[in-house]
Amino acid sequence: MARHPIGDEFGLIERHFAPIARNFPGALELADDAALIDLDPGHQLVATTDALIADVHFFADDPPDLIARKLLRVNLSDLAAMGAEPRAYLLALALPKDTDEAWLAAFAEGLAVDSQGFGIALAGGDTVATGGPLSLALTALGQVAAGCALMRSGAKAGDGVYVSGTIGDGALGLMALKGDLEIAAPHREQVIERYRLPQPRLSLGRRLVGVAHAAIDVSDGLIADLGHICRASGIGVTIAAAAVPLSDAAREAAAGDGALLARLLSGGDDYELAFTAPPEMDGAIATLGEELELPVCAIGQVGPGEGVVVGDSDELGLVFDGGGYRHF
Amino acid sequence: MARHPIGDEFGLIERHFAPIARNFPGALELADDAALIDLDPGHQLVATTDALIADVHFFADDPPDLIARKLLRVNLSDLAAMGAEPRAYLLALALPKDTDEAWLAAFAEGLAVDSQGFGIALAGGDTVATGGPLSLALTALGQVAAGCALMRSGAKAGDGVYVSGTIGDGALGLMALKGDLEIAAPHREQVIERYRLPQPRLSLGRRLVGVAHAAIDVSDGLIADLGHICRASGIGVTIAAAAVPLSDAAREAAAGDGALLARLLSGGDDYELAFTAPPEMDGAIATLGEELELPVCAIGQVGPGEGVVVGDSDELGLVFDGGGYRHF
Repeated sequence: MARHPIGDEFGLIERHFAPIARNFPGALELADDAALIDLDPGHQLVATTDALIADVHFFADDPPDLIARKLLRVNLSDLAAMGAEPRAYLLALALPKDTDEAWLAAFAEGLAVDSQGFGIALAGGDTVATGGPLSLALTALGQVAAGCALMRSGAKAGDGVYVSGTIGDGALGLMALKGDLEIAAPHREQVIERYRLPQPRLSLGRRLVGVAHAAIDVSDGLIADLGHICRASGIGVTIAAAAVPLSDAAREAAAGDGALLARLLSGGDDYELAFTAPPEMDGAIATLGEELELPVCAIGQVGPGEGVVVGDSDELGLVFDGGGYRHF
Repeated sequence: MARHPIGDEFGLIERHFAPIARNFPGALELADDAALIDLDPGHQLVATTDALIADVHFFADDPPDLIARKLLRVNLSDLAAMGAEPRAYLLALALPKDTDEAWLAAFAEGLAVDSQGFGIALAGGDTVATGGPLSLALTALGQVAAGCALMRSGAKAGDGVYVSGTIGDGALGLMALKGDLEIAAPHREQVIERYRLPQPRLSLGRRLVGVAHAAIDVSDGLIADLGHICRASGIGVTIAAAAVPLSDAAREAAAGDGALLARLLSGGDDYELAFTAPPEMDGAIATLGEELELPVCAIGQVGPGEGVVVGDSDELGLVFDGGGYRHF
């Protein structure tokens, strides 16, 4: 880890970050030029980077532990979508000059909690000063048996389309935080929690290896992310909006409101997995969901064509931004 | 690669970055959730992240191709210091909202040139908008035969201390750019080039596996970086300032100026390798330098004690910041 401590805080890395790295020998106590990470024989490295910027991706005054945990979790969600097992991560932290010790302690505490919870080690990084907003980039490294990674490009005509958990809570949480929508307790707290602390579906992703043909995590919004699968696979998808699983909070908020339901299907930050699988896997997928205690719903079909069609748009009165598109 | 294009530039990644990734299948055309990277059997992953922020680490109006190349090179220098072979990198790019197409094209062109030149592939990343200065983080991934990585912690009493190339040109280049020091042509251009476009010593690093006991790249400054080896290895180092290799530009600038010479020994951004090796390797190191056409100079000795002593400080009239420290 290169050391460019802010201000006089020469011990910043030792105080806050070295403890998180202590149990991972390859981190070399965050005191060498690079980290050393072993993969199991016959495995490929899976690597992803996501950046979060204050006042773009989160609010600068959000609780620092939640910022850290979301940063790690959005990257873990990318590993989940590939069917990978997390190993280690590197963190690039650009800190405004007025960042104080308490903020850093809380940020590091959040990282520590989720590093342990998800079994991933802090292996290295860089800490620098910035004249701008807090800027974070995290690179998550995982492994998958060679040739077994889930990709966006494997969907085939005849596949079913599935999604885990519930959709739209991330978008609702952001609306609630921004004051765009009144949501009563306890739903308000539930959707804000979903927005701030997504749950990467790592166990599901790993169990989908050999089951799913294509997978993606829902970060840009369900419809956009299914669109990514369509483009990468050269296929089209038809889904039924009525089949998309909603939380009680989302169902109540969107009842009779086609415009809001359309926003939930298009909103980001759910970090569920959307995937396609051949019909003969339908039973295995149901069993998987039961074993993981995570609902997995069939929401549509892969066909030839291209793009995402929401088949029941008219019945549900869905109104998508831009004048009622149903074909994406 | 997650896609958060700035403004309307939805094709930014496709236009500028996908071409750099095209020859690396594991990049999945920068269109999946993560990249897939194979290591050779019996090898460990070596991973490092360095961040560069405009107006902290470079000038916002520096040529964009040189910013890109320096970003890649400072990370490659960390791989070099571990004796690793580069494989792939991930890029997190936080762009101010007024970033234009020409800037991006030049930045990507610089990346493309050095990706090819150093045999490392763009495998993934993230592009986001920022309300602050241009902020860059790059994670370089390499491999080294398991158990063979060079580290800072291996130095032993009796080792010689060596450094490659010349020291102080990076610091001189920065002084020239800031207008802190008048340097005449052609030396001015030479040191600015050294500052802006460091040369990662990858071939030397790989050849030092099995030869050196400890190694580091000179990024914080020769004395500080030798201090890192001292701390990690639990040893002390005595160097002779007169033995530290200087370019003609540095020799001329520092002639009779002990304060400036001290600044060159303490300045950063040289990206040479400093290392220690047992005396019986002295001949092999000389041969290595000849084969690589890269001067490698013996500049001191490892002893017990702790920290870095510049043995000839008094004779040379060295004046270090903070009142003439000779013991770091």
